[in-house]
Amino acid sequence: MSVSIGELAVRFGCELKGDPGVQVERVASLAHADEQSVAFIANPRYRAQLADTRAAVVVLDEASAAACPVAALICANPHATFARIAAVLHPAPAGPPGVHPSAVVASGARVHPSAHVGALCVIGSGAVVGERAYIGPQSLLDEGVRVGDDVRLMSRVTLCRGVVIGDRTIVQPGAVIGGDGFGFAQDGGRWLKVPQTGGVRIGADVEIGANTTIDRGAIEDTVIEEGAKLDNLIQIGHNVRIGAHTALAACVGVSGSTSIGARCMIGGQVGIGGHLTICDGVTITGCTMVSHSITRAGVYSGGIPLEEAHLWRRLVGRFKRLESLATRLKRLERGAAAAADLDEDDD
Amino acid sequence: MSVSIGELAVRFGCELKGDPGVQVERVASLAHADEQSVAFIANPRYRAQLADTRAAVVVLDEASAAACPVAALICANPHATFARIAAVLHPAPAGPPGVHPSAVVASGARVHPSAHVGALCVIGSGAVVGERAYIGPQSLLDEGVRVGDDVRLMSRVTLCRGVVIGDRTIVQPGAVIGGDGFGFAQDGGRWLKVPQTGGVRIGADVEIGANTTIDRGAIEDTVIEEGAKLDNLIQIGHNVRIGAHTALAACVGVSGSTSIGARCMIGGQVGIGGHLTICDGVTITGCTMVSHSITRAGVYSGGIPLEEAHLWRRLVGRFKRLESLATRLKRLERGAAAAADLDEDDD
Amino acid sequence: MSVSIGELAVRFGCELKGDPGVQVERVASLAHADEQSVAFIANPRYRAQLADTRAAVVVLDEASAAACPVAALICANPHATFARIAAVLHPAPAGPPGVHPSAVVASGARVHPSAHVGALCVIGSGAVVGERAYIGPQSLLDEGVRVGDDVRLMSRVTLCRGVVIGDRTIVQPGAVIGGDGFGFAQDGGRWLKVPQTGGVRIGADVEIGANTTIDRGAIEDTVIEEGAKLDNLIQIGHNVRIGAHTALAACVGVSGSTSIGARCMIGGQVGIGGHLTICDGVTITGCTMVSHSITRAGVYSGGIPLEEAHLWRRLVGRFKRLESLATRLKRLERGAAAAADLDEDDD
Repeated sequence: MSVSIGELAVRFGCELKGDPGVQVERVASLAHADEQSVAFIANPRYRAQLADTRAAVVVLDEASAAACPVAALICANPHATFARIAAVLHPAPAGPPGVHPSAVVASGARVHPSAHVGALCVIGSGAVVGERAYIGPQSLLDEGVRVGDDVRLMSRVTLCRGVVIGDRTIVQPGAVIGGDGFGFAQDGGRWLKVPQTGGVRIGADVEIGANTTIDRGAIEDTVIEEGAKLDNLIQIGHNVRIGAHTALAACVGVSGSTSIGARCMIGGQVGIGGHLTICDGVTITGCTMVSHSITRAGVYSGGIPLEEAHLWRRLVGRFKRLESLATRLKRLERGAAAAADLDEDDD
Repeated sequence: MSVSIGELAVRFGCELKGDPGVQVERVASLAHADEQSVAFIANPRYRAQLADTRAAVVVLDEASAAACPVAALICANPHATFARIAAVLHPAPAGPPGVHPSAVVASGARVHPSAHVGALCVIGSGAVVGERAYIGPQSLLDEGVRVGDDVRLMSRVTLCRGVVIGDRTIVQPGAVIGGDGFGFAQDGGRWLKVPQTGGVRIGADVEIGANTTIDRGAIEDTVIEEGAKLDNLIQIGHNVRIGAHTALAACVGVSGSTSIGARCMIGGQVGIGGHLTICDGVTITGCTMVSHSITRAGVYSGGIPLEEAHLWRRLVGRFKRLESLATRLKRLERGAAAAADLDEDDD
Repeated sequence: MSVSIGELAVRFGCELKGDPGVQVERVASLAHADEQSVAFIANPRYRAQLADTRAAVVVLDEASAAACPVAALICANPHATFARIAAVLHPAPAGPPGVHPSAVVASGARVHPSAHVGALCVIGSGAVVGERAYIGPQSLLDEGVRVGDDVRLMSRVTLCRGVVIGDRTIVQPGAVIGGDGFGFAQDGGRWLKVPQTGGVRIGADVEIGANTTIDRGAIEDTVIEEGAKLDNLIQIGHNVRIGAHTALAACVGVSGSTSIGARCMIGGQVGIGGHLTICDGVTITGCTMVSHSITRAGVYSGGIPLEEAHLWRRLVGRFKRLESLATRLKRLERGAAAAADLDEDDD
């Protein structure tokens, strides 16, 4: 794919400094760009890298434009504009419309003729695949699954019985959506499985990462709202609700029946307990344990940065003796108070 | 599936208040139940929700019965009875006996005629599949795998060479059982792979969650005992033993050669070191690090709940200066002791 | 496979005490070995177990030789020698050269005639598979993937578009290499996907664990250098670099653009932030949060061991009141200083 930077300027509403006829073929970093490459700079911290770039053109904002020695596409949000240009130069891999002959499609399934179903997929009875959907190789759509228009299941995605996926949503390989929730009743010292009869509803424009698991609801549905972004190896328990445009970094676990609001940002390896409510606009930094609900937007933390091991061991020792340290402090305070009383008696 | 509540009362030993002829078709929550639904209440906290339910019948205990405005199935353990009723109304998806024509079954494999093998499964040489087993689509049973009666591999389950699965055990999609353990010998600054020659033995009535991984033993076997329940995205290292009826929530990691007793409950994201022994009846709350053995039943914790970020940073700063705080306290104590001595000298 | 211990001694440079003609067939632990078994002892702590062993021969070092009641293979590094012997007695499962008829191989792919491609694999256009490579059943090599000589993809491995795997590297089932990195631009309150145009390059002699995920680079490549060993359920973000011979235990998360040096050892469930640099020779113990770069080799920690829950709750309470404790200490210090001044005034 080759396109002129003049055309990019028009298409994405940028001010162009430079020759509009220059052709670009790919995106690259400032450091590794060549004369056919588009680079970008969004963070003024990296502005010094501009000096040495060999890029054909750099996407940047007004404030960085003066420092740019090559052509520039000037816009308010260089990261977003760069994303749109990258999507033009590097279109997502597509497959031809139709079903690969090695795929196994149940007679009751309805695959839109414009959709692509890759090699060795299994599409169950009653499943519906929308217009222009891309169902990558070895994916599994169990009975009654509904996949919207322009959905992309990259490869080897598992959608269990009845799962619903909104338009334009992307699912990375290995994700399992709709496995049974972890529901058991105690029954005389044994665990009795509680059938998980709810479903999973994923909104439009969602992205689900590789090997992430989203459990089906116990009775009602697990819900991921539109625009939410889930990274890899995330666990979403049954009956969780993730609000619109909320982003979860990798390795997060969300326990059952917890509701997370809209536009939250959850850092990597955060663990969130069950039956909690987290309001809109909450940011939680990485490795934090969330054991109670959050009712006020803001930034929350709970991780302690590392130390050299021998120092850390002493700190942990001190921590484990905090009770005794507090007792000793109390004793000193009493002594000081008694001394003060004594002083007063002296007066 | 439709069944009368009178039949449910007889079948599950409940006292029925209401018309035994009423037919029910599904389970539902108290809030969303309709006239064909069975709901339940196990926790008295939710008793207020009874007033507004439109359920055909509610499963509950004696204490909640008076507050129930509709028919009631009264029993000692409503959660367990509800689970049994749900299993009647929502039977687990089954496949017809026999092997799907797209499955690849080695000539030496023995699949019981009553078992179902789904689309695009691979069954290796010497593998054995028991009576009425359900092998969901795209599952892989490598050479010598043995799967018991009534086992359910939901879909895309990987059982590596020689893995043994007990009767009625359920495995969710994406689980990998019998991958090589993480065994390497140091050899002149490089890691040399130690062949993992042990196996994995999973007992009866176990459940294994989606994308969970259970490594084969280094020399002897990794063992999951009967009735244990493992949630999603759990890692079980080589030669681990998980005791009977122990439950592990999602994202737990258990390092190699650790033994966990019977009837333990391990919370989400708990990390358990290697070569440890945890006795029967231990509960560990979420996000806890377990770095030594536990020899007494009880409840253990190790996670610190979050705070607003600016407050958390100050707490972490204080924590990192605990050594200095203790030193300052010591100095004051010495001063106070010296002053006390002085006082005594004064006497 | 049966081999004489005399042959093993010659082949691996051991001193043999015992009858060189004794045949062995398998490896076993000291405790469970029989007369056809090779056992080993590397840790002098276990030396007492030698007395009761029924092994045909034990691999051990000079210091343990005297305590061995059976034949002995004496060498400097018993663990490494045992690994080599185990590889002889228990050769890795192999498949016949050639492509299984159920595999789907694109016309443009180049599979070396000595390689094995298992049942229901998919090999995309432009993919290259090296000599003697073993591509286990249900594996997916997307377009342009390159797999070196003697590589082993155990089963159901997903290699996305363009991923490169070095010679002799082993990948366990369920691993996903080359899924899209988590790259989004903020765009008016929504997340806009940034196409991930980089690749993944895995060096030679690497091992990747089950269900581990390694994201492709945003623009440049994600890189795993030779000899690195990654356990199960690890997340490697986009543009991460893992140095040669570095080992990561299970459930570790490494955020985007972080670089880890050579010969590091990262414990289980460690969480590593983004855009950090960790130098060569760093060991990080389990459950540690790494939020800043490490510039000096050594051992680092950040996890706090568990306590009984009621005691832990009190410690956490104390921790949360550290600010007040420090304030009270400060007040006492001021009081003591004032008293000291007073004393001095008295003089």
